[in-house]
Amino acid sequence: MSHNTFGHLFRVTTWGESHGPAIGCVIDGCPPGLTLTPEMIQRDLDRRRPGTSRFVTQRREPDQVKILSGVFEDDRTDGPRTTGTPISLMIENVDQRSKDYSEIRDRYRPGHADQTYDAKYGLRDYRGGGRSSARETAMRVAAGAVARQVLGPHILIRAATIQIGNHKASLRRDWDETACNPFFAADAEIVPVWESFLDEARKAGSSAGAIIEVEAINVPAGWGAPVYGKLDAELAAALMSINAVKGVEIGAGFEAARLSGEENADQMRKGAEAPQFLSNNNGGVAGGISTGQALLARLVVKPTSSILTPVKSVTRDGEEVEVRTKGRHDPCVGIRAVPVAEAMMACVLADAKLRHQGQMG
Amino acid sequence: MSHNTFGHLFRVTTWGESHGPAIGCVIDGCPPGLTLTPEMIQRDLDRRRPGTSRFVTQRREPDQVKILSGVFEDDRTDGPRTTGTPISLMIENVDQRSKDYSEIRDRYRPGHADQTYDAKYGLRDYRGGGRSSARETAMRVAAGAVARQVLGPHILIRAATIQIGNHKASLRRDWDETACNPFFAADAEIVPVWESFLDEARKAGSSAGAIIEVEAINVPAGWGAPVYGKLDAELAAALMSINAVKGVEIGAGFEAARLSGEENADQMRKGAEAPQFLSNNNGGVAGGISTGQALLARLVVKPTSSILTPVKSVTRDGEEVEVRTKGRHDPCVGIRAVPVAEAMMACVLADAKLRHQGQMG
Amino acid sequence: MSHNTFGHLFRVTTWGESHGPAIGCVIDGCPPGLTLTPEMIQRDLDRRRPGTSRFVTQRREPDQVKILSGVFEDDRTDGPRTTGTPISLMIENVDQRSKDYSEIRDRYRPGHADQTYDAKYGLRDYRGGGRSSARETAMRVAAGAVARQVLGPHILIRAATIQIGNHKASLRRDWDETACNPFFAADAEIVPVWESFLDEARKAGSSAGAIIEVEAINVPAGWGAPVYGKLDAELAAALMSINAVKGVEIGAGFEAARLSGEENADQMRKGAEAPQFLSNNNGGVAGGISTGQALLARLVVKPTSSILTPVKSVTRDGEEVEVRTKGRHDPCVGIRAVPVAEAMMACVLADAKLRHQGQMG
Amino acid sequence: MSHNTFGHLFRVTTWGESHGPAIGCVIDGCPPGLTLTPEMIQRDLDRRRPGTSRFVTQRREPDQVKILSGVFEDDRTDGPRTTGTPISLMIENVDQRSKDYSEIRDRYRPGHADQTYDAKYGLRDYRGGGRSSARETAMRVAAGAVARQVLGPHILIRAATIQIGNHKASLRRDWDETACNPFFAADAEIVPVWESFLDEARKAGSSAGAIIEVEAINVPAGWGAPVYGKLDAELAAALMSINAVKGVEIGAGFEAARLSGEENADQMRKGAEAPQFLSNNNGGVAGGISTGQALLARLVVKPTSSILTPVKSVTRDGEEVEVRTKGRHDPCVGIRAVPVAEAMMACVLADAKLRHQGQMG
Repeated sequence: MSHNTFGHLFRVTTWGESHGPAIGCVIDGCPPGLTLTPEMIQRDLDRRRPGTSRFVTQRREPDQVKILSGVFEDDRTDGPRTTGTPISLMIENVDQRSKDYSEIRDRYRPGHADQTYDAKYGLRDYRGGGRSSARETAMRVAAGAVARQVLGPHILIRAATIQIGNHKASLRRDWDETACNPFFAADAEIVPVWESFLDEARKAGSSAGAIIEVEAINVPAGWGAPVYGKLDAELAAALMSINAVKGVEIGAGFEAARLSGEENADQMRKGAEAPQFLSNNNGGVAGGISTGQALLARLVVKPTSSILTPVKSVTRDGEEVEVRTKGRHDPCVGIRAVPVAEAMMACVLADAKLRHQGQMG
Repeated sequence: MSHNTFGHLFRVTTWGESHGPAIGCVIDGCPPGLTLTPEMIQRDLDRRRPGTSRFVTQRREPDQVKILSGVFEDDRTDGPRTTGTPISLMIENVDQRSKDYSEIRDRYRPGHADQTYDAKYGLRDYRGGGRSSARETAMRVAAGAVARQVLGPHILIRAATIQIGNHKASLRRDWDETACNPFFAADAEIVPVWESFLDEARKAGSSAGAIIEVEAINVPAGWGAPVYGKLDAELAAALMSINAVKGVEIGAGFEAARLSGEENADQMRKGAEAPQFLSNNNGGVAGGISTGQALLARLVVKPTSSILTPVKSVTRDGEEVEVRTKGRHDPCVGIRAVPVAEAMMACVLADAKLRHQGQMG
Repeated sequence: MSHNTFGHLFRVTTWGESHGPAIGCVIDGCPPGLTLTPEMIQRDLDRRRPGTSRFVTQRREPDQVKILSGVFEDDRTDGPRTTGTPISLMIENVDQRSKDYSEIRDRYRPGHADQTYDAKYGLRDYRGGGRSSARETAMRVAAGAVARQVLGPHILIRAATIQIGNHKASLRRDWDETACNPFFAADAEIVPVWESFLDEARKAGSSAGAIIEVEAINVPAGWGAPVYGKLDAELAAALMSINAVKGVEIGAGFEAARLSGEENADQMRKGAEAPQFLSNNNGGVAGGISTGQALLARLVVKPTSSILTPVKSVTRDGEEVEVRTKGRHDPCVGIRAVPVAEAMMACVLADAKLRHQGQMG
Repeated sequence: MSHNTFGHLFRVTTWGESHGPAIGCVIDGCPPGLTLTPEMIQRDLDRRRPGTSRFVTQRREPDQVKILSGVFEDDRTDGPRTTGTPISLMIENVDQRSKDYSEIRDRYRPGHADQTYDAKYGLRDYRGGGRSSARETAMRVAAGAVARQVLGPHILIRAATIQIGNHKASLRRDWDETACNPFFAADAEIVPVWESFLDEARKAGSSAGAIIEVEAINVPAGWGAPVYGKLDAELAAALMSINAVKGVEIGAGFEAARLSGEENADQMRKGAEAPQFLSNNNGGVAGGISTGQALLARLVVKPTSSILTPVKSVTRDGEEVEVRTKGRHDPCVGIRAVPVAEAMMACVLADAKLRHQGQMG
C-alpha cells in the first residue's frame, strides 16, 4: 500500500479524477495464461454502476472498460489470455457535465476531502471531488475482476449490506437474494424496511450509513505472512482505504471484547483432511494466516457527505458559509461499496496467493 | 507492510522468537541528529513489561534494551545522536524456562497460531508460541519510542483501555489517571469494577477481551497519501497487525452507520489559523489525509487464548484432545496492548511525516 | 524497481505492447504545483522519435502524448499544474501495420526476448516484440520529462553518444553539437565517420553497438541513501533496465582497475562553499551519496538484434531455422537510447531528491 | 533496494558500524525447512575474512556469526531448519582498537564517504568509516550463504579476480585454482605477477584496482521480471552497491559496442531439452529474463582509498590538509570483494527464484 498502488506481487495502481478525461488502472504481476475479456470485468462494474435504482446516484456513467495491454489472443490460445505483463484498464468519463464549479471551488464540504487536499497539496481538482471522488472505486472493482481470475472459480467472494441506519438485517445470509434487490441485502425481509427508511432520508435531504459483510469461502489454510503482512492487517488496510469507510472488523470483531476466552476460542475436532472448527470467531485467520475457514470481515461506511440539508462550513479563505450539496448523490454510499468490498478482498487474496507461492514454491 | 517490515521511509523490521536467544528490531530511515538513549526506549518498554500487577503475566522479563548501531556520540554532539543509519535494538531473552514442550509440541491451542503456522510452514518453533508470541510486540514498543523522537514533543500520543469484558469506562478521559492504575484506565471509577471482574475471570481459569482507544494530538493537517496509502488505512493495518486484535475503527467508527449525514458531518467554523471543527466523527482524517484534529482510533483485543479451562482441539496428526494452558498468562492481554497501540500509532505517524516531507519538501 | 514500476517516492509504472492499442505510464508521488503541459513532454519524446534520420528506424510513430490525470488548471493557477495525484500519460499506437506474423510467431530471434518470454510465461505477444519492444522506452522519456520538472531548471541532465562500433568520439564534449547531428554526438568531427560506418553496416544488413555518456550537473551533495539504495546502485539498475544495455559504469568506471590509489583519489582543495575536487574519478558519488560534482555514467548498448543477415536459430518446437529480420529497424539502437538514458537519470534523481527530503526534512 | 534493505521476497536488511558493538542482518521471506547452521555461514565468511594473506588487511576479526532467530531444531527435524520467520544474524566486533580518532574526525579522506556522509547527515560515526566501512560486506556474505540454501546445490555461483592493476589473467577459468591462491585467481600463472605487483604497490604506500568475474551456472530459463525488475538490472544494482565498485557489465558488456549484430547474436541450435546457444554474449539474460545459459557479470573495484601516500584534502571546516592513512588496509580491496560478489549474486537469484514462483506458481 503506497500512495496509489497496493499489493506486493499482484499490484494495482489506479489513476484518474472524477471529471478528467478518463480513469484507469494498471495491474502488474498477474500470472500469464488466464482468460480475461472486457465482459468479465464489465459484469462486476455493472454491479457498482450508478443509476440502477432510486437508492443510488442517478449519474449516467456507462463505465465501459477497455483493456489496453497485457492480454493477447492468437490461434494457439483459446480466447484472450493474460501474458504476465501489465494489464492496463481504462474507462472514459462521459457524463462530466460542464457546469459552473465556482461555488464549490472555494468551499469546504464537510465530510469530504476538500480541506485536507488543500492543506496537503495547496491546490486541488475540485470538479466532482477530483481524485477523492468515489468514482475511483470503479477501478478497484475492475482490478478485483482480474483478481478473481487469479484466485480461480473455487474461491468464492461475496458481500452483503447487513445494516443501513439503525436497521439491521437478520443473521441469515441468503446469498442468492443479494442479486434480487437494490441493496445487496442477503435477507429479503429487510428490503422494504430499508426502502422506506432511505426514501425518507432522501426526501429529507439527508443520507444514511451502512455496514457491509464480506467473506471469502474456500481460502486454503496457510495464506498470509506474519507479523506485519498479516492477512487480516492487509485486509483491514484494503477495506479502510475505500472511500467513507470508518471501521473494519474480522470474525467476532468488536464483540470479542465481551466474550470469555472459552467462548471465543474456535475449538477443533477431527475433520476429513484438516481440523474442523466448531466456531469462527477468528474470522478465518489466526496469527495473520488463514485457517481454512471462511475469511470474514465487516466494514462500516459513513453516511454520504453530500446532502441537501445545509451544514456549516468555511471557505478556503476562512469565510463562514453554509453548504448544501445539490445534484445526483447516493443517499447511502454504502450500497455501492458492496462490490468494492468484494473487489478489495479479491485483490488482497490474489496477492496473498502469489506471495504464498513465492515463499513456499 | 511486508512480512516482518512495516513503514515506507521510517521502516521497522522485527525478528525473534519467544524462547530464542533474543528478540530485536532494525529501524531504517530515521532522520539524523535526534537524541536517543537506551533509557528513552526503556521507559516505554517498562510500561509494557510483564509482572507489574496481578492482572498481567507473571513472567520475569526485565526487557533490557541495547542499542547496537545507528547512534553516535562525540564531543561535538550533546549526547548520543542518531546518525541516519540503521538503528539496531536487541533484548536478550532471559526467562526462557527450560521445560518439557512435548505436550504443546503436537497440540493445536485454539485461538493461537499453532494450526496456521503448521499449515503454512510445515514446521514451527512451538516454544512459547515462537514468532507468533506477543513477546514480539516489545520491539514494536521499542520502535515506537524512536518514532516519538522523530515526531518531536509537540505531537502527543496516548492510549487508554476503555472496555474490559462487558464493562465500559465512562466517556471522560482523565489521561493522568492512566499511569495510576494497572489497566491504563483513563477513568478512576471503572478500576475497582475491572479489578473484581478480572480477579473472577482469573480464578475461573478464563480470560477477557478489551477495547483500547488511542489518539494523537497536534498532528498537522496534510499528512497521509491517498488513495491506498491513506493515513487511516495504514493505521488500520498497523493496529490490526498487533496480536489478538480483531477490529479497528476511526472516529465515530461503527457508530457512523446509525448517524444521518448531517449528524455525521464535522461542520466547520472560522478558527484562528485553520478551520475549527465542531465535532470529530472523522477521527482526524478525511480522504486519507489528516485534518488537524485529534487522530482517533479504537481497537478490540480478543480474550487471551491461553486459559486453564479445557477446550476441545486436535493434534497435528488429527487426534482429538483437550487443551488446558497452565502457566503465567495475562488474564486480559488487552491491557499490555495499550503501549503497543501507542507505539504503532507513533510509527505510522513518523512514516507519514517523512513521506509528507518527501513529496512536499 | 519491481516488475514494471521503478522509484520509491517518485514512482513510474509503464504498460503497453508494441502493437497493442496504446502504451502509457502512471507517475505517482509527483509534488504538486509544478507546471506540466503535453508540449513539455512532447519535446523530449520528439528527440527519441523514429524516422528523424536514415540512421534510425523509418517507422512512423508520431508519439503524441496525452495527459489523462494528475494535472489541473483553474483561474487561480497560472497554467496547468500537477496536483500531487497520479499522472497518467498515454500514447496511442498508430503505425501497427496489420501484417502476417506467422513467421516470427514461432521463431526465436537471437538477441531478442522471444525465447525467454516463452520460457517464463509460456505465451507471448509476438507482434513487434510485444512488451519487450524498445517502444516501451517512449514512456521512460515521457516520465523523464516530468522528473525534470521535479528537479527544476538548475539541474541539467545531458547525454551524448561517445562511441559507435569501434569509432570513439574525442574526449571534448560540445554539448550544443548534440542537437545538430543525427547521432547526439558532442563532437562534430566524429559525425562523418559514424555516417559512413553506419551506412555501410546498414547496406550489409548488419548493425552496430554504441556507448553513451550521461551526466547531471548541479546535483547537490547529499542525495542517495546507503547501503543498498546507493545513488550509483539505483542509477546502475535504471540504466541497465533500458533495452539492449549490457554495462554501466560510473566516473572512471572500468578504467579504475588500472589506476593507483593516489591517481584515483579525487583530491580536494578549499572551495567557495564546499570542497573543490581536483578530479572526478568517482563520477560524483562516494559511499552511494552525491558529492556535488557532476554525476557521470556511461552505458553500452549492444548492436540491434534485428538484422537482415541470416542467423541460426530454432523454433518454439525446437526445429532449426535461419532468421532474417526484414523491416524498418534501427541500424544502431544506441542512438535513440540517448534521450532514454537522460530520462532514466532524471527519474533516479527526482526520486533521490524526494527521498532525501523525506529523511532530512 | 531501499536504504539498507534489498530484495523483494528474499529480503536482506543489514545494520552496524565498523567500530560499534556488532554488525548484523535480518533475512526475511526465506522458505522454511532448509537446513541452516552457523558453520554453513561461517564457511563463506572465512573466505572474506581479513588477515588470511599479506595482500589483505591484517586486522584480526574472527567474524564469528551467531544465528539469533528463524532457525529451529526439534526431534522431528533432522538438524536445525529455517522456520520461514526472520533470520537474524550477528557478528560481534572484537578488534575495535581504542585509539585516538581526533585526526580523522575532521578530515575528509579522498575516495571515502567522509565528505558525503557529512553533507547528507550533518554528523557521522567516523570511527573506521562507521557505516560506510567495507566491514558491512561481511553481512552480505552471511546473507549470501543463506541464499545459496534457497537456491539449492544444483545452482553453482563462483567468482574470480580476473585483473589487478593493468595485469589481466588469461581467459581460462580453472575454478579449483581460486581456492589455492590469495587472490581468488582462476589462472595459476597470473599469481606470481600479481604478487610482485601488489608487493610493490604496498611498499610504495599505494594501492590497486581489480576486476572480478562472477557467474551462476544452472540457473533455469525464465527467472527475472521485465521491464524494471529485469534480472540484469537487479544484478547491476546489487553489485554496484558493493563498496568501491564503479562499474558492472553483463556478458560481452562494453565489448558489445565493437561487435556487429551478427557477431553479437547468440545463435541457437536444437538442444536436448532447450535451445542450445552457440555463444553467450548476452551473459545469460535476454529481455531481463534468464536464458538458461551461465549468468555472467563483471565488476570493477577501484583501488583502496586508504593509502600511505599523502593526498590533498580539506577538513570539515574547509581547512586544507594532507591525508595519509596509516593502519592495516587492504592494498587491493578488490580481492576480498570476490566472495561478496558471489553473495550478492546468490541473493539476487534467491529473490528472483521466489518471485518467479510467486507469479508462476
